[in-house]
Amino acid sequence: MGCSGEHATTATRVLLSADARGIDSHGIARLSGYRVNATPAIKIVHETPSTAVVDGDAGLGLVVAPYAMQVAIDKAGNVGTGWVSVRNSNHFGIAGYHAMMALQHDMIGMAMTNASALVAPTFSIEKMLGTNPIAVAVPAKEQPAFVADMATTTAANGKLEILQRKQADTPLGWVQDKEGNGALLPLGSDREHGSHKGYALGSIVDIFSAVLSGASYGPWVPPFPAYVPMPENMPGQGLGHFFGAMRIDAFRPADEFKQHMDNWIRRFREAAPAPGHEKVLIPGDPERETEAIRMKEGIPLIDAVVTDIIAVGEKLGVKL
Amino acid sequence: MGCSGEHATTATRVLLSADARGIDSHGIARLSGYRVNATPAIKIVHETPSTAVVDGDAGLGLVVAPYAMQVAIDKAGNVGTGWVSVRNSNHFGIAGYHAMMALQHDMIGMAMTNASALVAPTFSIEKMLGTNPIAVAVPAKEQPAFVADMATTTAANGKLEILQRKQADTPLGWVQDKEGNGALLPLGSDREHGSHKGYALGSIVDIFSAVLSGASYGPWVPPFPAYVPMPENMPGQGLGHFFGAMRIDAFRPADEFKQHMDNWIRRFREAAPAPGHEKVLIPGDPERETEAIRMKEGIPLIDAVVTDIIAVGEKLGVKL
Repeated sequence: MGCSGEHATTATRVLLSADARGIDSHGIARLSGYRVNATPAIKIVHETPSTAVVDGDAGLGLVVAPYAMQVAIDKAGNVGTGWVSVRNSNHFGIAGYHAMMALQHDMIGMAMTNASALVAPTFSIEKMLGTNPIAVAVPAKEQPAFVADMATTTAANGKLEILQRKQADTPLGWVQDKEGNGALLPLGSDREHGSHKGYALGSIVDIFSAVLSGASYGPWVPPFPAYVPMPENMPGQGLGHFFGAMRIDAFRPADEFKQHMDNWIRRFREAAPAPGHEKVLIPGDPERETEAIRMKEGIPLIDAVVTDIIAVGEKLGVKL
Repeated sequence: MGCSGEHATTATRVLLSADARGIDSHGIARLSGYRVNATPAIKIVHETPSTAVVDGDAGLGLVVAPYAMQVAIDKAGNVGTGWVSVRNSNHFGIAGYHAMMALQHDMIGMAMTNASALVAPTFSIEKMLGTNPIAVAVPAKEQPAFVADMATTTAANGKLEILQRKQADTPLGWVQDKEGNGALLPLGSDREHGSHKGYALGSIVDIFSAVLSGASYGPWVPPFPAYVPMPENMPGQGLGHFFGAMRIDAFRPADEFKQHMDNWIRRFREAAPAPGHEKVLIPGDPERETEAIRMKEGIPLIDAVVTDIIAVGEKLGVKL
């Protein structure tokens, strides 16, 4: 489609990382449907020693995000931390991929993004926020890294799509009606169970990603599939992301920190399990376990995705 | 008790701010029971241009926290952002107070703290994490600031204490048994409703506040009331906090940002309300409305708190 080899490789790596980690909704299934500038001039439009705003020039989020995260990492190398807000971007794959880029540098990594509106704030029925995920990756020494990667909703949209495909019932508290239609609910489901907190978290992601960078926000975020019309009166450009990197030794010696992270992780693994459960998991465990299996046994694809990939290949003259 | 006048004034201001904003559990009701060094030598023990670790010298968290937040603000003034992890501290009052210190500087403020273990991770019955709150304050122009201040549990411990005092039933999903005993549940309540996300958020607060600074973490966090014995084999010193300040104009012109925040807030206020609800609230609305009332009509105190304040006064020879 005109992407450079370098961009195509980066985008492929991000998508395959989602499939390998078991987050099928964010992997190769997204190959068709992107509405992007294939040859973006991604650039820093404003910066200070610890911050930057990056303009993605309407490019693939899969390419814009690693660029911006690298800027955050470079700044953390210089002054301890780096924080980058991004405008004029698109869907960036799994947030965890970008956050995890920090690990090899003995840094804590953070990544978040806004997305088109599917979620209603507490006390509302109107779709105002995306599923706005937050990822945080923290290095350990002998233990695997702590990697949280979560939508700020009760259930990720991908899980809902899977239920709808199976025509299975939607659990109470995921969406606003029994049929699984209507808006998604923020983490907490209802006011009594803290949905105002999930709504606040999703809002913070929207503000850091878009109001800080000049991207579109709230109900004006451009929709992901190319066939959905764009909102009117958009207050900014494209989707927004936010990335952070904190150098561990800007706080305490990295080796000391990582030993304590090992201690933290071991102690939580040993926490008394609830009846009917085997053990406590550490954020990142399920994805890492899936990745180990899939790197050996391969990545299963559903028929619809295979058909889609073949169609894209034929359209673009790529032999499969 | 030997606190300097300056420290006493700061501590009073933080406690009264909680009472004024309606968070009674974190206000003057906490006056007795602190176990602290009255004359701490609070100091920066490590720093880079955008980071610092502060040692609270076992002082009042109410005093240590504003000191550390000011360090974050100063660093943001110099290099765009400032991030401060704190060890050897104590209960710091409401997180929102410290985050809001950033607002007058046209900065986004963040504050979080760990706390003694009351919360069980997903799949566990063991108390491993505190209610570990996160506060984020974002300035606007004509609209009041966006101020989120939330425990990473389904219900704040203070709300549970109020129910127990009234001998009222505890809503399903707040704690692990019907009597309201057992561990508190992370935001999300159970796995199906995303409690693994609340558990991850509480863990991130613990790691940023304590593993990064050298404070105690997880089940080893020292308990708040002075009469509860200290845990054995503590891996760090005291409670931990984490503060952040981001200068708006390190990303885009502050005035432009604040106009967009006004637009964001107005649009969310106008979101279609759900049946039975009047309007959508913006994080910080309820506390601000309570503050406006209480600054006119005064702060109601329950008898137990009045008795407690009188007892403290008599013990210390202060006339009331």
